[in-house]
Amino acid sequence: MSTPLTVGNGRVKEARKLSRRSVRTERRLFLADGPKAVEGALSVAGCVVEVFATPLALEQHAELLAEAPVTLVDDRALASLSDSVSPAGVVAVCRHLDAPLEHVVRASPRLLAVCADVRDPGNAGTVIRTADAAGADAVVLAGQSVDAYNPKTVRATVGSLFHLPLAIEPDPAAAVREAQARGLTVLAADGAGEVDLFDADLSGPTAWLFGNEAWGLPEDLAALADHRVAIPIHGRAESLNLSTAAAVCLYASARAQRR
Amino acid sequence: MSTPLTVGNGRVKEARKLSRRSVRTERRLFLADGPKAVEGALSVAGCVVEVFATPLALEQHAELLAEAPVTLVDDRALASLSDSVSPAGVVAVCRHLDAPLEHVVRASPRLLAVCADVRDPGNAGTVIRTADAAGADAVVLAGQSVDAYNPKTVRATVGSLFHLPLAIEPDPAAAVREAQARGLTVLAADGAGEVDLFDADLSGPTAWLFGNEAWGLPEDLAALADHRVAIPIHGRAESLNLSTAAAVCLYASARAQRR
Repeated sequence: MSTPLTVGNGRVKEARKLSRRSVRTERRLFLADGPKAVEGALSVAGCVVEVFATPLALEQHAELLAEAPVTLVDDRALASLSDSVSPAGVVAVCRHLDAPLEHVVRASPRLLAVCADVRDPGNAGTVIRTADAAGADAVVLAGQSVDAYNPKTVRATVGSLFHLPLAIEPDPAAAVREAQARGLTVLAADGAGEVDLFDADLSGPTAWLFGNEAWGLPEDLAALADHRVAIPIHGRAESLNLSTAAAVCLYASARAQRR
Repeated sequence: MSTPLTVGNGRVKEARKLSRRSVRTERRLFLADGPKAVEGALSVAGCVVEVFATPLALEQHAELLAEAPVTLVDDRALASLSDSVSPAGVVAVCRHLDAPLEHVVRASPRLLAVCADVRDPGNAGTVIRTADAAGADAVVLAGQSVDAYNPKTVRATVGSLFHLPLAIEPDPAAAVREAQARGLTVLAADGAGEVDLFDADLSGPTAWLFGNEAWGLPEDLAALADHRVAIPIHGRAESLNLSTAAAVCLYASARAQRR
């Protein structure tokens, strides 16, 4: 077994630069941190470039890493690649996974989640995880959304980033029009919407459009949707938070489509 | 107008101690930070002891604070009472709001959310907010759950902490038995549950039992529930996160009970 690389090693240093969005975007690479994420990454053909692991983690995850291109690093080098407070000993350098919007939409999806200007990495990751659980066909991060490859987003997906297609589309209006052109009904999740979620016909192919955590959907974007749909508020809360609202909407669709 | 108190003032110092759980518990007081939370607190008779506000915030929120017992503080003193990165200028010292479990259950609730060992303040707060939105009658934080009066929990409730009854019950089994004794069906949210959420009869009075973020519900506690109910996972995700799962369950109940 070779000597573990240390924190000053050139390859470790290069990988560490992937903590910066600009470097991730330029190289189309990102870091998947921890055994769950690495397992997800290894399940996608051609995704993993290199796995950094401590000798202990290599032993603990021998089966998972048996065929992987592992580079041994010491604890400090591994910690420098992880943004976790207690790193699990294994971090993979992965290729970006997003596909062009056209590809995602051309595959005749029945359930899409489109996030416009979602800014919180945890929220974006949770929506991806929930979309996966609800059986959505793909997720689109549109507009000025947080980077899908931000370590906090990747962690919040708990592996789902590797489970379903993802598109990144700077123009949210393009995502709406593209979905409509392919026969999907676009529903804007909007607390002030005129249709009650539980009155809506959700049985057909649907793209849900979710807005920003603080200010929701811009008026001109919501106006492009086929309907504005509100989750009924029965108590005194003013609204739901983004990821819980997305969960209620996506599961209402899953239920309607699968019965 | 009196001179704003500074960070070294005795009353400011005393209020600042409420950032510690032990002090909150001993004094049965907590801090509500920001105009939304203060508005919620002022809507509950007898809840607010004192409102600390900067002169600017008092001007900005003149209507809200017109009848409130306001103490002026300078920016630094206010910041010392807030755990927000950009304090909004107003923090209220509030009395604890929780009621004994028996009181909450005696009121014939039709929908209860019981959290057992919920550890993340954001999750606990989001469940309270979602329970409010779904029209639940009360929330029970049971077992070793995070402090309901943690500033992060209070913030995540976005005012809902002040909207519906809350009970804090160290023994989660007692909460289950008390709910059952009052005729509620107790449903354990459990990914391995034998009943599919969308097959369950949710029309009657229901208490939902939610477990810890990482390890779910302990076996002996889940065994006390009337049924174990699983949200169907259609994709490859292993599970949902706690607050999104709670949202899907509570809204499934709201829908069934209100149609």
